[in-house]
Amino acid sequence: MSTLKERGALVAEAARKMDKPVYDGDIFNKTPEARRELQKQSPKLATLEEAIRKSGLKDGMTISFHHHFRGGDKVVNMVVAKLAEMGFKNLHLAASSLSDVHAPLIEHIENGVITKISTSGLRGELARRISTGLMEEPVVFRSHGGRGSAIANGDLHIDVAFLGASSSDPLGNACGYSRSPNAKSICGSLGYALPDAQYADKVVIITDDLVAYPNTPNSISERDVDFVVEVDSVGDSSKISSGAIRDTKNPRDILLAQQAAKVIINSGYFKDGFSIQTGSGGASLAAVKYLRDSMIEKGIKASYALGGITAHMVRLHEEGLIDRLIDVQSFDKVAAESLMRDQAHKEVSACEYAAADEPGSAVHYLDIVILSALEADVNFNVNVLVGSDGIIRGAIGGHPDTAADSALSIIVCPLLRGRIPCIVDEVTTLITPGKTVDVIVTEYGIAVNPLRPEIAETLRAAGLNVVDINWLKDKAKSIIGDAAPLPFGDKVVGVVMNRDGSVMDVIKNIEDPEL
Amino acid sequence: MSTLKERGALVAEAARKMDKPVYDGDIFNKTPEARRELQKQSPKLATLEEAIRKSGLKDGMTISFHHHFRGGDKVVNMVVAKLAEMGFKNLHLAASSLSDVHAPLIEHIENGVITKISTSGLRGELARRISTGLMEEPVVFRSHGGRGSAIANGDLHIDVAFLGASSSDPLGNACGYSRSPNAKSICGSLGYALPDAQYADKVVIITDDLVAYPNTPNSISERDVDFVVEVDSVGDSSKISSGAIRDTKNPRDILLAQQAAKVIINSGYFKDGFSIQTGSGGASLAAVKYLRDSMIEKGIKASYALGGITAHMVRLHEEGLIDRLIDVQSFDKVAAESLMRDQAHKEVSACEYAAADEPGSAVHYLDIVILSALEADVNFNVNVLVGSDGIIRGAIGGHPDTAADSALSIIVCPLLRGRIPCIVDEVTTLITPGKTVDVIVTEYGIAVNPLRPEIAETLRAAGLNVVDINWLKDKAKSIIGDAAPLPFGDKVVGVVMNRDGSVMDVIKNIEDPEL
Repeated sequence: MSTLKERGALVAEAARKMDKPVYDGDIFNKTPEARRELQKQSPKLATLEEAIRKSGLKDGMTISFHHHFRGGDKVVNMVVAKLAEMGFKNLHLAASSLSDVHAPLIEHIENGVITKISTSGLRGELARRISTGLMEEPVVFRSHGGRGSAIANGDLHIDVAFLGASSSDPLGNACGYSRSPNAKSICGSLGYALPDAQYADKVVIITDDLVAYPNTPNSISERDVDFVVEVDSVGDSSKISSGAIRDTKNPRDILLAQQAAKVIINSGYFKDGFSIQTGSGGASLAAVKYLRDSMIEKGIKASYALGGITAHMVRLHEEGLIDRLIDVQSFDKVAAESLMRDQAHKEVSACEYAAADEPGSAVHYLDIVILSALEADVNFNVNVLVGSDGIIRGAIGGHPDTAADSALSIIVCPLLRGRIPCIVDEVTTLITPGKTVDVIVTEYGIAVNPLRPEIAETLRAAGLNVVDINWLKDKAKSIIGDAAPLPFGDKVVGVVMNRDGSVMDVIKNIEDPEL
Repeated sequence: MSTLKERGALVAEAARKMDKPVYDGDIFNKTPEARRELQKQSPKLATLEEAIRKSGLKDGMTISFHHHFRGGDKVVNMVVAKLAEMGFKNLHLAASSLSDVHAPLIEHIENGVITKISTSGLRGELARRISTGLMEEPVVFRSHGGRGSAIANGDLHIDVAFLGASSSDPLGNACGYSRSPNAKSICGSLGYALPDAQYADKVVIITDDLVAYPNTPNSISERDVDFVVEVDSVGDSSKISSGAIRDTKNPRDILLAQQAAKVIINSGYFKDGFSIQTGSGGASLAAVKYLRDSMIEKGIKASYALGGITAHMVRLHEEGLIDRLIDVQSFDKVAAESLMRDQAHKEVSACEYAAADEPGSAVHYLDIVILSALEADVNFNVNVLVGSDGIIRGAIGGHPDTAADSALSIIVCPLLRGRIPCIVDEVTTLITPGKTVDVIVTEYGIAVNPLRPEIAETLRAAGLNVVDINWLKDKAKSIIGDAAPLPFGDKVVGVVMNRDGSVMDVIKNIEDPEL
């Protein structure tokens, strides 16, 4: 038997043939000193300021955030305030969405800290100021699936992601809940943060519950994390079901929800094993309640519910009426707690949820989606972003993604909101193309897209009040009269991207209604 | 308000500034016809032959497999037989490991179907034939962490991965267990298949339980899957605890296990929150049983157990003595069933487990590992691959990965196996470098690496029989005498890679002992 030393020539020869180096006797990355120590120390723990410095963030770069705490989010304001204090300028803020709570960004935009924004939506004072021309650069709006694609394909390159988490261990295994007794917050799924975690150059986890390693099961893996920052609070969990996803008590919403349920039940898609998603908006969320009775009565069970998961969905799942929950965003605390507890309640990333160019996104296999609208037009185009006053007051969300890929897309939308018509000649802003919208449910009747004549036929046969979309538009006009033209200016304040990465529409500035 | 048509010029201008196309009105990938259909059909379902054809596999390419069914695996032989039947030649078979059951590969090597092999190990008749010179090209041996790194960094490029799964839906969400009533097999973690699923050009899932979409929670995501093939059986689950991971009843192994437990308890690393891994081999697996009493007595709990997870580990976890299980490979059916059931039992990929260049691999934070050996030498180098007769009869596994990165690496190894000395002047083949090995436990005494004098001191203080490694080697020689030199030839039949991707040793051919 030749000795190791004698085999040296053969080793060198093998290495040469394989074009590999010969082993140099070093241990890859552990010094004997490091091996003497218990291994739990983490080089990733840092203050927010240290993490920012070490991340290599520079003026002009792109930072990102998720919106899983919705109206309760504390991370965006905290981080941008720190960046302002540290003197950063000219940053691109790429959030999965922004809302009322982010009004403090106005100051940082005025001071040049933030000069570009990408988001799914804007609400409140920040939205009003941007609509009236606060920023030089237009805000880029993307759907949730479109954002996932853009991050994955490099259209939206993130330099540093700042991702709030309800628990993390010192190495960065993080999630939107905590199993420790010190849990301070819960938001459930971190689905919109997962593309950022995967593709950002640097990832900073910001957590209010630093737990012992290993924090398993985890949503975000330490593989993807560079820094872990502990703070007092990342978000107010009581506000995750605020805003667009409040439970409705509005009688008109309840009527719309009941009508939407009837459409589903009679659509031909209400079969054992069907799948369903409900968008935000009271009526679409409430429709699930009215489906339940019919599911029990007819012995029909759903294979999965997708998307923003709500307490209603969790209830149906726990009753055995929905087999699996696929959760990109937990719409309330009940859903978030179910995600933590229940193996059949699965968290997915924005890409797995709704990316158009992702063969494995769940939305491709979705049967039925119920969505809301600010406006729909006679070509079935839908606007969920810009109010009829021309002010941005919503979010694209997964609206165009789910409409495009589901077998049956249903919009629930009142004919009028106060003195504002919701069925119009043409939407103020094009968010969801009409050819992807199948049915529009209003309190005055149900319009079916002429591209789907078989659905109109089956609904009529079931005795539902199917009407022409133009009749609805005329009905609204007959009640309200013609709307005055909106006082738009000539500045482009927003650009709406289609989920395929093309530019679909622009939003122009509008006169400030408070001036 | 300008109309969509009037806004066209602004949209074009915005698109030009962003260097993006204008939306062309198409729906990204769903035709109206496709939207009319329920969406559950899968274009991925295929027979094995169709999947191979559609995968684009060509002569000379690399195919890969996992070994989670160990001695019960049916996938490698099934696929290679089909490839032979279809006339493929000159393929590179890159398995995470191979064993006795893969003897039918000999015929396919002789016929030129398989001309190159990469694996962690070889056993049985296939190993004997390769050791005696069956193949022209040397087999490339990598550790589990090394294989993960090589796949991730492109050193080991996989053209088509054939991955057995105990359940999959028609889209490819797959795992090593099934929640359906038709479950036919279970292997638990698919950790060694996950790098293949992530990095292979094409991925074919082969399953014996095709379940309804969505098969959540899943190990392998449909995102990564191109084809799904249903077969009668992917593996015999009763054999996953065969071979190197049988429970020992050997009195010497039990003695060694007890000694190893004493080393741990007195090492200074046996503290509340410690982490532990046991390699395959009866004595190392059994050591856990002897730790248990001491953990209960002293009120010490482990933060996690890593690696191949066994029924012993599951028991300690369920008793509250081990907080989390991190499972790259389920070593028995009890462990596989626990993985399916228990959220605190987490599946990880080979990269997350043990890749040297992966900052987030769990092995970096491992306190204690207990490993076995075929041979160890006076420089603490260890061989777990080539028998003292020169025939390959083992697998590298995670041996060098865990030895290198743990705080305390313990080898349990008898001084003699029959007439074969296990503590020698120099190992036949270098698998785990001596500087990563801290303690060698034999039935004649405990040797401590001079690099770790503090451990020798603490063990001596505890009254353990600490001896010089040279004394052990001399003791073996005094009983057995000098071993005759092995009849090695001059052909290189195997190349041993270090986990850093360098060439560490070669294995030479040996005269066939049966001739």
